[in-house]
Amino acid sequence: MKTIKVSGMSCGHCVASVTKALEEIDRVCDISVDLASGLVQYKTTADVDTSVIKNAILKIGFTPED
Amino acid sequence: MKTIKVSGMSCGHCVASVTKALEEIDRVCDISVDLASGLVQYKTTADVDTSVIKNAILKIGFTPED
Repeated sequence: MKTIKVSGMSCGHCVASVTKALEEIDRVCDISVDLASGLVQYKTTADVDTSVIKNAILKIGFTPED
Repeated sequence: MKTIKVSGMSCGHCVASVTKALEEIDRVCDISVDLASGLVQYKTTADVDTSVIKNAILKIGFTPED
């Protein structure tokens, strides 16, 4: 399980958007987003560079933290 | 132009949801939602009871004010 912190999510629609964006990435699964903490957890079935995850989040208007 | 105040909208996704919910009601058009103020404006091409508008908003999880 990997964890990334995302800022800018304010409601359930935001959570759904982030979840969907990560679901669309190959080899990423079991995505879990906690709105209160901004923590996004996911598994990868093979090596997926974190930059791919971060770019997908940026693209839909949220901010992945380092 | 009619105006209703809606609480619970926190982001652009919420604005899009409210806009879409009202767009789906017959005889409602020209919907404009202001996130900062919570004010939702719309026109009706014939008589549409305010309760229809309010119910559509409630149904998607927001709160129309009296």
